[in-house]
Amino acid sequence: MLDSQNTSSRNTPLATHIGADDLPFVEIGGGNKLKVIHVRAAEGLWIVENIFQAGYEVATHRHTGPVFGYTVAGAWKYKEYDYVNRAGSYLHEPAGSVHTLHCVEDDTRVWFQMYGANLNLTVDGRIESVTDGAAALDAYLALCQAQGFGRPNVLVG
Amino acid sequence: MLDSQNTSSRNTPLATHIGADDLPFVEIGGGNKLKVIHVRAAEGLWIVENIFQAGYEVATHRHTGPVFGYTVAGAWKYKEYDYVNRAGSYLHEPAGSVHTLHCVEDDTRVWFQMYGANLNLTVDGRIESVTDGAAALDAYLALCQAQGFGRPNVLVG
Amino acid sequence: MLDSQNTSSRNTPLATHIGADDLPFVEIGGGNKLKVIHVRAAEGLWIVENIFQAGYEVATHRHTGPVFGYTVAGAWKYKEYDYVNRAGSYLHEPAGSVHTLHCVEDDTRVWFQMYGANLNLTVDGRIESVTDGAAALDAYLALCQAQGFGRPNVLVG
Amino acid sequence: MLDSQNTSSRNTPLATHIGADDLPFVEIGGGNKLKVIHVRAAEGLWIVENIFQAGYEVATHRHTGPVFGYTVAGAWKYKEYDYVNRAGSYLHEPAGSVHTLHCVEDDTRVWFQMYGANLNLTVDGRIESVTDGAAALDAYLALCQAQGFGRPNVLVG
Repeated sequence: MLDSQNTSSRNTPLATHIGADDLPFVEIGGGNKLKVIHVRAAEGLWIVENIFQAGYEVATHRHTGPVFGYTVAGAWKYKEYDYVNRAGSYLHEPAGSVHTLHCVEDDTRVWFQMYGANLNLTVDGRIESVTDGAAALDAYLALCQAQGFGRPNVLVG
Repeated sequence: MLDSQNTSSRNTPLATHIGADDLPFVEIGGGNKLKVIHVRAAEGLWIVENIFQAGYEVATHRHTGPVFGYTVAGAWKYKEYDYVNRAGSYLHEPAGSVHTLHCVEDDTRVWFQMYGANLNLTVDGRIESVTDGAAALDAYLALCQAQGFGRPNVLVG
Repeated sequence: MLDSQNTSSRNTPLATHIGADDLPFVEIGGGNKLKVIHVRAAEGLWIVENIFQAGYEVATHRHTGPVFGYTVAGAWKYKEYDYVNRAGSYLHEPAGSVHTLHCVEDDTRVWFQMYGANLNLTVDGRIESVTDGAAALDAYLALCQAQGFGRPNVLVG
Repeated sequence: MLDSQNTSSRNTPLATHIGADDLPFVEIGGGNKLKVIHVRAAEGLWIVENIFQAGYEVATHRHTGPVFGYTVAGAWKYKEYDYVNRAGSYLHEPAGSVHTLHCVEDDTRVWFQMYGANLNLTVDGRIESVTDGAAALDAYLALCQAQGFGRPNVLVG
């Protein structure tokens, strides 16, 4: 009694499309850029797109949930690994993994679908700060405002 | 007593990198191609990359879990919506959403990170078949074998 | 710049408590009862509590996402397995698993945390109907209305 | 070609049952007890059952993923909220939520299905330590060994 074979319900939920130009990339220093696309805070989900320039580094961090990385252009690596992430590559970072991002080529482009938080570590492995979807969204909205983009329509929920 | 501030454990799990050429694209007819990259069957997770040619269609289907689509090249749409998915766009398909894929431009490239199953529907909305990560993996491995690619190292688990 | 060590933010999200009597159990026939507690439809999440009577059966179904079962009282089993689920036991049903619920003792009580849909199968393994969180919620709300419970405050989202 | 309507595949994955006595409760001090039931580390999932005695406290912590709490017996609360969790209640703690557990009645019993990590906080809101599924499993196995239970068969993966 709890089921329905007919799937063409009037209540069918809708997909949400966010075009390449629907949300701005904000400058985060040195020509590196960030776009926060989708945050479902209760679930711990956050999806961002980055453009990195050669030499850019992200502090060593440990993830508390799984991360799925899709590289579209350029080249970047984690210092802890030999391989280089290039266009068309996929990266799976399990919960608990630790790494230090280093960008190898200009205009590297990557989507990260992340769950949980980044625990940003000092060189001796202590937690210096925490980044999660809610914090990333706040920072993005503030940078959008400061850089003249107004309030973009990030998918929330 | 259950915690540890020191995060540089010898047990740190490793990220898994799958380069663009590490897994083959198999032909699925008409120049359309499929690569199955990652399947975590117990969780219902499956990640694929597709190359579609203009005119390619995927039967109307309903998703039982959320889907996250990242378009890298070309143009495609769902017949149920006006927008066209192009390079750099993001698509969120909530669990329960229903749509019919139609490819608009040749060499369209999309990553889909999917949870759950596709319920493939007849024109009157009844379920004709089901596709999930385990089935996609089986099909991919069979096609790899048939097309001379041997047994590729799909990330499983 | 995207992080914050200070975690006592004014934006801290709140936990939601649903007391044992905050939502009614509805009768679903033969003294068997259902409570729908939490539905996050976009993610495919649905959490229910059931009270089953001896002899109650649920049609054979396949799950498209993982299910986590917590048995509080009584005894029930899946016909496909020998073990009996009793108070204090845990059951993990991976995506793709198939089974036929049979209740062994009166007043069996189980929480199910489910992702995705139940594909209800005929004896020859074809899909007869589909139950998901949205459908369960609709049915529950209708039964609440019909049984004089008004509109209960199920956690949605 | 990627689908199958016939669901009675020989490859159907199996459910895993863990009976109430299949895993030991270990003593964690003062008559409080812990059972680690299921850890899927890559996904950040950990499921535990606790028995708490009146007066037991868990340090203030922030969750980086969602938590689902099922209370079977007794009474406990978070100091930050007025409500008391009693038998038959459900608690949803979204990612980012912060709280300090205090047990009100002896032999309180709760299942927690958790994703991500607990960031354990000092009184001024700084992170003192981190607990996640992998750490909880290590601690549980060590306590089992020390308390004469050998190596229990926790569901891993």
